[in-house]
Amino acid sequence: MPLSPEHQAEIDELRARPQSTLRSTAAGMEGHLYTAYPVLDHGFVRVIDYMGDDAAICQAARVSYGRGTKSVSNDEGLIRYLMRHWHSTPFEMCEIKLHVKLPVFVARQWIRHRTANVNEYSARYSILDREFYIPAPEHVAAQSTVNNQGRGELLEGGEAARVLEILKADSARAYDNYEAMISQDGQQGLARELARMNLPANIYTQWYWKVDLHNLFHFLRLRADAHAQYEIRVYAEEICKLVADWVPFAYKAFEDYRMGGATLSATALDCIRRMVKGEEVTQETSGMSKGEWREFMQVVG
Amino acid sequence: MPLSPEHQAEIDELRARPQSTLRSTAAGMEGHLYTAYPVLDHGFVRVIDYMGDDAAICQAARVSYGRGTKSVSNDEGLIRYLMRHWHSTPFEMCEIKLHVKLPVFVARQWIRHRTANVNEYSARYSILDREFYIPAPEHVAAQSTVNNQGRGELLEGGEAARVLEILKADSARAYDNYEAMISQDGQQGLARELARMNLPANIYTQWYWKVDLHNLFHFLRLRADAHAQYEIRVYAEEICKLVADWVPFAYKAFEDYRMGGATLSATALDCIRRMVKGEEVTQETSGMSKGEWREFMQVVG
Amino acid sequence: MPLSPEHQAEIDELRARPQSTLRSTAAGMEGHLYTAYPVLDHGFVRVIDYMGDDAAICQAARVSYGRGTKSVSNDEGLIRYLMRHWHSTPFEMCEIKLHVKLPVFVARQWIRHRTANVNEYSARYSILDREFYIPAPEHVAAQSTVNNQGRGELLEGGEAARVLEILKADSARAYDNYEAMISQDGQQGLARELARMNLPANIYTQWYWKVDLHNLFHFLRLRADAHAQYEIRVYAEEICKLVADWVPFAYKAFEDYRMGGATLSATALDCIRRMVKGEEVTQETSGMSKGEWREFMQVVG
Amino acid sequence: MPLSPEHQAEIDELRARPQSTLRSTAAGMEGHLYTAYPVLDHGFVRVIDYMGDDAAICQAARVSYGRGTKSVSNDEGLIRYLMRHWHSTPFEMCEIKLHVKLPVFVARQWIRHRTANVNEYSARYSILDREFYIPAPEHVAAQSTVNNQGRGELLEGGEAARVLEILKADSARAYDNYEAMISQDGQQGLARELARMNLPANIYTQWYWKVDLHNLFHFLRLRADAHAQYEIRVYAEEICKLVADWVPFAYKAFEDYRMGGATLSATALDCIRRMVKGEEVTQETSGMSKGEWREFMQVVG
Repeated sequence: MPLSPEHQAEIDELRARPQSTLRSTAAGMEGHLYTAYPVLDHGFVRVIDYMGDDAAICQAARVSYGRGTKSVSNDEGLIRYLMRHWHSTPFEMCEIKLHVKLPVFVARQWIRHRTANVNEYSARYSILDREFYIPAPEHVAAQSTVNNQGRGELLEGGEAARVLEILKADSARAYDNYEAMISQDGQQGLARELARMNLPANIYTQWYWKVDLHNLFHFLRLRADAHAQYEIRVYAEEICKLVADWVPFAYKAFEDYRMGGATLSATALDCIRRMVKGEEVTQETSGMSKGEWREFMQVVG
Repeated sequence: MPLSPEHQAEIDELRARPQSTLRSTAAGMEGHLYTAYPVLDHGFVRVIDYMGDDAAICQAARVSYGRGTKSVSNDEGLIRYLMRHWHSTPFEMCEIKLHVKLPVFVARQWIRHRTANVNEYSARYSILDREFYIPAPEHVAAQSTVNNQGRGELLEGGEAARVLEILKADSARAYDNYEAMISQDGQQGLARELARMNLPANIYTQWYWKVDLHNLFHFLRLRADAHAQYEIRVYAEEICKLVADWVPFAYKAFEDYRMGGATLSATALDCIRRMVKGEEVTQETSGMSKGEWREFMQVVG
Repeated sequence: MPLSPEHQAEIDELRARPQSTLRSTAAGMEGHLYTAYPVLDHGFVRVIDYMGDDAAICQAARVSYGRGTKSVSNDEGLIRYLMRHWHSTPFEMCEIKLHVKLPVFVARQWIRHRTANVNEYSARYSILDREFYIPAPEHVAAQSTVNNQGRGELLEGGEAARVLEILKADSARAYDNYEAMISQDGQQGLARELARMNLPANIYTQWYWKVDLHNLFHFLRLRADAHAQYEIRVYAEEICKLVADWVPFAYKAFEDYRMGGATLSATALDCIRRMVKGEEVTQETSGMSKGEWREFMQVVG
Repeated sequence: MPLSPEHQAEIDELRARPQSTLRSTAAGMEGHLYTAYPVLDHGFVRVIDYMGDDAAICQAARVSYGRGTKSVSNDEGLIRYLMRHWHSTPFEMCEIKLHVKLPVFVARQWIRHRTANVNEYSARYSILDREFYIPAPEHVAAQSTVNNQGRGELLEGGEAARVLEILKADSARAYDNYEAMISQDGQQGLARELARMNLPANIYTQWYWKVDLHNLFHFLRLRADAHAQYEIRVYAEEICKLVADWVPFAYKAFEDYRMGGATLSATALDCIRRMVKGEEVTQETSGMSKGEWREFMQVVG
C-alpha cells in the first residue's frame, strides 16, 4: 500500500479546503491534485501544484509572435503549429510539481534529466523505510538476445521463482543489517550516511520533482517509449494521464507529433519519395545499414 | 503611460473572476496579480502567475531532510537555516511568471540570467510600438571617474539638455524611418526582420519571464544591488516588493543573508579576528591590495 | 575588413607557436584555429579552442554502454547509431570556443540558446566601434506575403536604394551623436552605460561563445535551416564548415539525421503507409490541415 | 587496486604520444593527464582533457570589459578581481573532463550538480564489476549527536568490527546473487536492467564528467568543505590538487575568497562593526539565534 493513513489524512484535509485564486486554473488538474496514484508495488505519483494551462501556452506565444499569431484562428490550431515547428518556449510557461515515490534504480535514470528541480529524501539525515520493489512475476524477464539494453522473454517458472526469492531475501537481510547498524540500543549506532550504503537499488526513495511542460514532454517521449525500461515507463505513463487532463490540446499535439511520430533521415526520406513513386526499394538499394533498414521498415512497413 | 486602455480592461476582467482552487495560494500575491506596476517612463512589471509560498519551501525541505528538520521548530527558522547554509533546492520549488516591458538595452543585460524561461515579443513577426526610454533629467549622469562601469556626477544643465535632445530626436527619426521602410503604401515594404535593425537600444520590448525563487534571488542580489545600472535596478526593486509580499519569510532571510550580507575572504576574516582582539590593522598590514582594503573598509568601517 | 592589423598580428603570432600536448587533437581543426572567417560585411567567426574529436565521442559512449557497444564495429557506425537514437550525452563530451563578431540584432537571437557560456563585449565598460551591418543589395527583401516571419521577393531598385540610404544615414548619425555624448572634450561626458542606448541594432558587438557539440548541433539545426533569418544563417553555415572538419563522422550523421531529415507526425506516417501501398491520399483524406499538408508535400512530394 | 593492467597500458600508451597543437596548453595539467589518482579503496580520478588556463580566463574577461580591464595590471590581479566581484562568466571559459570511479552512494550526491555533462557506465547494457567500498576502520563513525546529517565519534572496536563484517558479507552475497541471476549457464539469465537492483549502494560505478571551471568551483566549495561527507570530500580534495596545478591563479583566488572565506549576514556584519569599536557583544545582544551565534563565533572567534 503506497500511502500511510497519516498521508491519506493529510491529502483528505488538503482536498477539503478549496481556496479562492485569481490565477488561471485547469479544471482537469484540480480533480487530480494531491491524489497519490499507485505505481509499481509501493510507489506513487501525485500532483502537488501546477502553473498554467493550454490558454497560458497560447498567451505566451501571442506575446512573442504578436499579430503574427492572429492568422491561426483557435488555441488548438496554434498549439499544434507551435509543436510542429519546435517553438518550445511557450510550453516552458507551464510548470508542474510532482511528489514521486520510486525505487532508487529508477531514480538514478530519472535524475539524468537535468532541467528540473528536485528535493529528494536524504538518507544522510533520515532513516529509510523498509520498502523494496519486488517485480511481479509477469515482469521477470530474461536479457534480450537482440538488444543489449532490453529484456526479452519471460523467465520460465522455476528460474523466475528463484529470482524473486533472491530479491526478497537479500532486501530483507540488507534492511535488517541496516537497522542493526544504526541502532542505538546498547551501542553507539553507525552514522546514517554510512549505513545507507548497505541498501540495494530496489529500495524506495521519494522526491519532489518540478519541471516545465517542454522538458516534461521530452522526459515523457523518452520514458513512455516502448523501449524504455518497464519500471520507469509505468511512471511516465501515469504522468501522461495527468498531463492529458491538465493541457488537453498540448497533450494531443504531443501524442501526434512526438510519441506517435518519427524522425526520418535524409536517406530515409529519399527512399520514401522513391517508394511513393512506385519504385521497389530494398535494403541493398536504400543506402541504409541493415539496422537502419529494420527500424525504417517498422516505421513505414 | 505604460498601459493601453485595452490592456487595462483585460486586467480588470481577469481580476473580477476569482476561481476556486485546491492549490496553495499566497494572499499577499493574489492582491498583486495582473496589476502592471510602472517602471521607468513606459515600462512595467506585472505578475501573471505564481506557484508556492513560504510553506511550500518548508514542505520541500521536509521531504529532503525528513525527521532532520523536526528540530527547527517553525517555518521562519527553517527558512533562515536553509538560506544560511546555501540549501538552495527548496527555494527552487517556488516559481513566478512575470510580464515585463523594458528597454532593449536592459533586456540585453537581463537575458544573461540563463536559468529562466522567456517569451519575448518578436520584431521578426510583429511591428514594435513607438515607445522609447528617455531618462529623467535627474538620471543623466557622467561617466564615473573611479569606476569603469558606472556613472558619476549628474551632467550639468546645458549638457544634460543636449543629451536628452539627441536621444529624443534620434529615437523619433529612427522610428519614422522604420515605419517608412516597412510601409506597404505605394511600395512593397521592407521585411520586418530587416527593418528592426534601424531601431536603437532604448526602444521598449516586452516579454514573459518565468523563473524559480532561487534563481530570482540570484538575479535580485545582482540587479537590486547599488552597483547595478539604475535602469535595471528599478525593475529589480519593483520585483523585490512583490516577492516580499509573496514569500515574506524567505524574502526577509534573503535581505539579511544576501542583500545586506557580504562575502569575506580568508584574508579579510583574519583581519577581523585581529581587529576584534584590539589590534590596529592597516592596509599595509592587512595583506590586501588597496582596492580590496577600500571595499573591506566599506563593509566593516 | 573584419580584422584590425593588431588582431591579425596576434593571430599570426599564436599560429606560429605550436605546443606539445598529450590531449587528443583534431588535425582538421588545428588548421582553422584562430583564423577569422569573414561573415557579413564586418563580422567573423574564429575558433579559439576545442576539446575532443570523433574518437572522444566514441570513448564516452563506450564508458556508458561498455560491452554493449562492441557489436558496432567502427567509430562511424557507432556515431550514426548514437545520433539516430538520440543518445545525446556522448556528443556533449566535445566542446568548442568561438570568437564571433556579429550585429546586435543577430546576437539577440543567438543568445536565446541558453546552454552555452558567453563573454560579450560590454558597452557599459568600453566604447563600441563605428561598425554597422548594411545589407548587400541582393539581401534587401520585402516582407513575405505568405509567412509572417520571413522575407519574400527582393525590393525593387528604387525602394532598395532608399532603404540602404536610410540605414547608412541613421547609423552614421546615431554613432556621431554617441561620440558627441560621451566626449570629454569641453564637457563631462555622458556615462557609457547610458550613451549606448542611442545605438541601433545593426551595430556590431563581439563575444566569446563556448558550447558543447550536442547543443551546437541543436543551434545549427535551427539556425542553418532555410527558414532561419539570412543574417544568422550565414554564421551557422560558416560554423558548419568548421565542425565538418573537426568531427567529420559526427557532422555527416548530423547532416543525414538532422539537417536533411524531418520529423513526421503519427498522422503523416499513416499517410505514408497508405501511399506506399498505392493509395491516392489527398489533403481532404489525410487528416491534416492545409498548412500541415503543404509542409508534408514538401517533404515527400 | 584501482587500475587494471589493460587500463594502465592504455594510459602509458596515451602518455607516450605527445601531439603538436596550436591551442593553449597548461604545463601543470599536462603532467597529470590520464594518470589515475587513487581515491578510497577502489576509486580514482583522472583528467581526460582540459580547455583553457589562467590566461584564457583573462582573455575572456578582456573581451567583456575591453579597455575597462586595462587598469588591472596583471593576470593574477584581474583574476582576483573577477572572483571577488562574482564575475563568473570568464571562469566558465575553462573546461575539464574527468574520468571518475566512485561508489554509487557518492555518485548519487555528485549528480545533483546539474550543470555538467555525464556519461555513466550503464548497468542496463553491461555487467558491473565485483568492487565495493568498505570503509577503513578509522572512518567507521557513529551518528553525530549534534548534527542530523553528520558523523560523530569513531565507533568502538567491537561495534566497528561488526559493521565492517556486515558490509563485507552483504556486498559479497549481493554480488554472488547478481551473478547467479544473470548467469546464462543452464538457464535463460535475468535481464541486466533487473538484476542490478540487487546491488547495494557501495558498489563502484564510473563516469566521464565534464564541467566548466565556474561550476567546478561551486562543486568544490560544497564538497571539499569540512561538513561534506568524507567519502565525497576525498574526491573533491583530489580534484583540488589537479585544479591548483591547472589554473594556479584562479585556484589561489578560489581558496582565499571561497574555501577560506565566509558569507556574513547583515546582522553579523553589524555585530562585527560593534565589536571592532570595542563593544562587548553577546548572543543575547547580537540579534542572532543560538545556532547562528555559534556559527558566527566559529568564524570570528
